[in-house]
Amino acid sequence: MSVNTFGRLFRFTTWGESHGPAIGAVVDGCPPGLALDESVVQPFLDARRPGTSKFTTQRKEPDAVRILSGVFEAPDGVQRTTGTPISLMIENVDQRSKDYSDVARAYRPGHADYAYDAKYGFRDYRGGGRSSARETASRVAAGAVARLVIPEVTIVAYVSEIGGDLIDPANFDLEEIGNNPFFCPDPAAAKRWEAIVDDARKSGSSVGAVVECYASGVPAGWGAPLYGKLDADLAAAMMGINAVKGVEIGDGFAAARLTGEGNADPMRPNTETGPDGAPEFLANHAGGIAGGISTGQPVTCRVAFKPTSSILTPQPTVTRPNEKGEREATELFTKGRHDPCVGIRGVPVVEAMMALVLADHKLLQRGQCG
Amino acid sequence: MSVNTFGRLFRFTTWGESHGPAIGAVVDGCPPGLALDESVVQPFLDARRPGTSKFTTQRKEPDAVRILSGVFEAPDGVQRTTGTPISLMIENVDQRSKDYSDVARAYRPGHADYAYDAKYGFRDYRGGGRSSARETASRVAAGAVARLVIPEVTIVAYVSEIGGDLIDPANFDLEEIGNNPFFCPDPAAAKRWEAIVDDARKSGSSVGAVVECYASGVPAGWGAPLYGKLDADLAAAMMGINAVKGVEIGDGFAAARLTGEGNADPMRPNTETGPDGAPEFLANHAGGIAGGISTGQPVTCRVAFKPTSSILTPQPTVTRPNEKGEREATELFTKGRHDPCVGIRGVPVVEAMMALVLADHKLLQRGQCG
Amino acid sequence: MSVNTFGRLFRFTTWGESHGPAIGAVVDGCPPGLALDESVVQPFLDARRPGTSKFTTQRKEPDAVRILSGVFEAPDGVQRTTGTPISLMIENVDQRSKDYSDVARAYRPGHADYAYDAKYGFRDYRGGGRSSARETASRVAAGAVARLVIPEVTIVAYVSEIGGDLIDPANFDLEEIGNNPFFCPDPAAAKRWEAIVDDARKSGSSVGAVVECYASGVPAGWGAPLYGKLDADLAAAMMGINAVKGVEIGDGFAAARLTGEGNADPMRPNTETGPDGAPEFLANHAGGIAGGISTGQPVTCRVAFKPTSSILTPQPTVTRPNEKGEREATELFTKGRHDPCVGIRGVPVVEAMMALVLADHKLLQRGQCG
Amino acid sequence: MSVNTFGRLFRFTTWGESHGPAIGAVVDGCPPGLALDESVVQPFLDARRPGTSKFTTQRKEPDAVRILSGVFEAPDGVQRTTGTPISLMIENVDQRSKDYSDVARAYRPGHADYAYDAKYGFRDYRGGGRSSARETASRVAAGAVARLVIPEVTIVAYVSEIGGDLIDPANFDLEEIGNNPFFCPDPAAAKRWEAIVDDARKSGSSVGAVVECYASGVPAGWGAPLYGKLDADLAAAMMGINAVKGVEIGDGFAAARLTGEGNADPMRPNTETGPDGAPEFLANHAGGIAGGISTGQPVTCRVAFKPTSSILTPQPTVTRPNEKGEREATELFTKGRHDPCVGIRGVPVVEAMMALVLADHKLLQRGQCG
Repeated sequence: MSVNTFGRLFRFTTWGESHGPAIGAVVDGCPPGLALDESVVQPFLDARRPGTSKFTTQRKEPDAVRILSGVFEAPDGVQRTTGTPISLMIENVDQRSKDYSDVARAYRPGHADYAYDAKYGFRDYRGGGRSSARETASRVAAGAVARLVIPEVTIVAYVSEIGGDLIDPANFDLEEIGNNPFFCPDPAAAKRWEAIVDDARKSGSSVGAVVECYASGVPAGWGAPLYGKLDADLAAAMMGINAVKGVEIGDGFAAARLTGEGNADPMRPNTETGPDGAPEFLANHAGGIAGGISTGQPVTCRVAFKPTSSILTPQPTVTRPNEKGEREATELFTKGRHDPCVGIRGVPVVEAMMALVLADHKLLQRGQCG
Repeated sequence: MSVNTFGRLFRFTTWGESHGPAIGAVVDGCPPGLALDESVVQPFLDARRPGTSKFTTQRKEPDAVRILSGVFEAPDGVQRTTGTPISLMIENVDQRSKDYSDVARAYRPGHADYAYDAKYGFRDYRGGGRSSARETASRVAAGAVARLVIPEVTIVAYVSEIGGDLIDPANFDLEEIGNNPFFCPDPAAAKRWEAIVDDARKSGSSVGAVVECYASGVPAGWGAPLYGKLDADLAAAMMGINAVKGVEIGDGFAAARLTGEGNADPMRPNTETGPDGAPEFLANHAGGIAGGISTGQPVTCRVAFKPTSSILTPQPTVTRPNEKGEREATELFTKGRHDPCVGIRGVPVVEAMMALVLADHKLLQRGQCG
Repeated sequence: MSVNTFGRLFRFTTWGESHGPAIGAVVDGCPPGLALDESVVQPFLDARRPGTSKFTTQRKEPDAVRILSGVFEAPDGVQRTTGTPISLMIENVDQRSKDYSDVARAYRPGHADYAYDAKYGFRDYRGGGRSSARETASRVAAGAVARLVIPEVTIVAYVSEIGGDLIDPANFDLEEIGNNPFFCPDPAAAKRWEAIVDDARKSGSSVGAVVECYASGVPAGWGAPLYGKLDADLAAAMMGINAVKGVEIGDGFAAARLTGEGNADPMRPNTETGPDGAPEFLANHAGGIAGGISTGQPVTCRVAFKPTSSILTPQPTVTRPNEKGEREATELFTKGRHDPCVGIRGVPVVEAMMALVLADHKLLQRGQCG
Repeated sequence: MSVNTFGRLFRFTTWGESHGPAIGAVVDGCPPGLALDESVVQPFLDARRPGTSKFTTQRKEPDAVRILSGVFEAPDGVQRTTGTPISLMIENVDQRSKDYSDVARAYRPGHADYAYDAKYGFRDYRGGGRSSARETASRVAAGAVARLVIPEVTIVAYVSEIGGDLIDPANFDLEEIGNNPFFCPDPAAAKRWEAIVDDARKSGSSVGAVVECYASGVPAGWGAPLYGKLDADLAAAMMGINAVKGVEIGDGFAAARLTGEGNADPMRPNTETGPDGAPEFLANHAGGIAGGISTGQPVTCRVAFKPTSSILTPQPTVTRPNEKGEREATELFTKGRHDPCVGIRGVPVVEAMMALVLADHKLLQRGQCG
């Protein structure tokens, strides 16, 4: 089966293949009255756009978004959402017309080629087709709309680790994230990563990365227990991003090594929010979620990206059954453009998925609890 | 909002609070004709049942399941599923009628008390109410039904780490899992864990744990890209279990430190499955899932459980607003029974969620691709 | 496939067979804080209960409902919904242990026996099993909860026609609905219907009926275009009731014979709601719904119930394949208790479905549009 | 809320407004391997296309569909579905740039203008925006894909009544449906309808219609009881079409006037299907559905279309609140192009919705029951 829709009240459906004419998303359930035109969405796509530095794939895509429905000029003269589906389309421009006969015939190890073939019996093999990370542009576009729904929330993601090299918390500076091609909040680490990623690129290898994301301003009470928990929805959202293999909320696996005392998030009355307001938490091991419901603390998660599977070193693999009905052993390596560290461009996607999950839960909470 | 249903074609809905008269699950979409009576479900509940060793909570619950619908004696004289909803009910027996006035008035840190109150404005505070891990008995019962749908699959889960102490792969022996109260496949580790968990219990503290689970026999092709990916659904299923803070598929976070070559899962023709059959994989870094679709290799995941939040050491917390509308600072500690390591009893729950996700995806694949 | 859940935000899932130990419903997504105990639900079940007059089936069921979860004593001392799933259970008491060998072997014409067998390959044939109208007791129980969500709405249903004999609008008196066993607002028609239904009962025949329902107090703006339109959801809700074969909104089929002028629902400013308030409609051909969204006028629908298929006259039918794998021609007639006019007891079910749809749409509207 | 997705396994999501740049549908869950290119879809759009006779609106739309994703050239050289989402786009060409200031300011009676404004607080008023019947082109396109999923089924719809004038069953000839602009199977009636519809057109009035549809070849066993019944899903599908006010399955409201004997659908062994095959039914009052599940007989339904609300006769209505916050009384009439009988062009839409529902249920049945 295909399930290309995400969300419950705030939903989006994506379509499109890496080398088809276009990709896109339909956002449904967006509240009416939010100011939206292409200029609201484009900056987020630009942040994810390939070809902007030598550390990402050299595919050149303008990724210019068009909004085809769901907006209209409001009485105040501003183009706003009408509450009807918002169709977002991005044309594919730089689908290099290379020769795909090798990947048509055999499966690239580490990619979804074999799995898609086993599932559907047939696949669009050009550039990974539907399984290409190109689809994440649609998520980023939808995420830009989701952000309009949750103006009270600030979402920040960054890379905290590349190829096993970690940022130093002592150097952490949010302002630095935009100053380097790695979304890295530690300028010293960014410097080191240049060499790591460039080495991987030159040798045709690839490296993994960890992306961290937090959302502040989320009020207590978002989350739909027990099977639409906020953390479970976030886990699905993040694990569903191409190349992601692990997700942590709050302390994650480290929590498994703490004692109950070490993991406690004590509370006290909060002088800022007033005597009956939200309590002040003295720690946030939980990552802002308890029982699947937000606590009012920042929602935090960590996401592990595997190294790009596209590498220059030939890997043993098999072909589709030939005319005699037999698979043959062969080798494949990536000839074309690729991302030496796919986790870098995952940052805007992680942010988008965080926004999409939170927007959905805000509406759900409003629906049930008023 | 509440979302108490899980799954798409094979779905289950749970209900019930820790100290209400009963808990239960309604399983919907189960194929007809599967042999099912209480004796099929009960062994799985017995494995999760509290009070079976000093290493788990002393609440004594028989956890006897009743099947109230969805089964009927087939022409062959065997009670079988009819394809209609299967209602499973488990009565609560040992809801100790202790004094709950302290937790009624204040929030237990690390628990969902404050979050539920913030969300719903009101809560059943007895033993955690709906947020209690007692609800997982319903999942285990539903999971027992799910297993009937996927007889080709073998699911095994075990604890691989408690309080930071890991099993030794050299000692790994599946047969040992049932020989100790920790679901531990390494008898030497099990011995050490006795001391670790007993120390935690005696000191009123708690420790975390990591549970690993794998499913073998899953054919290639299960998974519903792009927003019902098998790994994303597993991530949601596992992250939604009480006390879970992290989920990994395959190599998980370790993959982020590998190179593309080190993380490759090469393939070759498989002499066992025949010349046109499934290829043989030479590694399984991916954990049996690529592009959100199973590859035919074992599906593997790791799940991090935080230490139980219920501890004897008093923790600072706040009260609900009093008659003057003000929260007060106070302290709470756990008086009653508790699990010193909630991850242990998480093992049957992890297995159940794996079964539930796989059963759903088997039906989805059959529905779309025939 | 089975789909035993109805609704989007306010959802209910039913389970149970006619002759199993019990039937029930799990209501999920109900807002917290609503006063609810068994006494709130029971009166609606009593209105639907069989065996209350000679004009309905003689099966005697107390239909006593138990609430097993989702409620708790609030600080004000009143038992209230907590926002978690509400499990409602009704025990089956009067499952007469008659001999079912004939219906086990052959299919009752007009019933779902053959269809269930064709679908599932197997069925609980006792009293129709899952396809029995007994399940509608669960809907009525869930509907009683739904009404709490929409206190601003008044729902009234009644029988307008039995066996082709219509009520006279000139005699229409809502007060009369409770004064006769037919939910008939026209006392003269009720008198006539006694003979019609009694004749059918005595001769072992049955008659059809039309139920009309309206909901006043529905504000403008409920409905989820384009595939969750209020009228489409109502159509599904009503058509899904046992024995229903037709649904009309507003003028229904009569509208197909009107001209555009005759079908117009003109508006004018409404002095009651104030100068900027909802307009006053000068007609309601549309039945209170335009474009799938409520207009603020009463929502009206008409529902056609076929005559009960259980009759004393033997009907030709076929058996399940015998040991030689062959179907045999046979005849079946209803030996047991039956409703001579199933539409009568459909009235509380129609009301319940109206309440369930409206409650869901109220929450949906609040979720999206705030 | 907006819900612009229909279906469970075979789903489609539509987007677009009457006067936006384009409209479209994303079909998700379509099985792989079905031959599909634009030429498969276009004929169905041509049948629905406006401006083809003087009996329908004079808006000229080529309604040329583009397939933007989900298809690829298969090894056999044929373009086929890949199992991924199929994006269908139709550009709006003839959005006449007329002056919309009157409908911007006031609500057209009988249209969804007021309801949308009450719901969303704001609307795209040009040509009805999202509520325009123009959106049904997307349904027809999606329906063309659905037909590929159910090659065993033949779907035929036709108009049986216009302005109260019925076809004569004695004249019924399926071949005639394509020979007149009314989809009328009775040539004599078609002749009469020319005058009826032309009179309505000339006088700026409109007339209603009844569309009948049947699907033969549906095997027994499709339908998802109890809340995804085949008849309930059909009822929702049909009632959700613009201008529809009533739906009947089988005998519909006429069944309410039959006795149990008169409404019986007896069975006997079927010599054609073999001794263990599907039985032969001696009548089809049920319209091919019992208990919400198909019986193997033709699935039949009737759909009532109200007269088009767009008429030349001015109708009283109200404005949006003016700068003083007050609604004003005014009158509106339709200046532009309109369909004098919207039911005529409803025929391809009814067929499409029938196909979409059946395709979904075929996949659901295969998923659950194999």
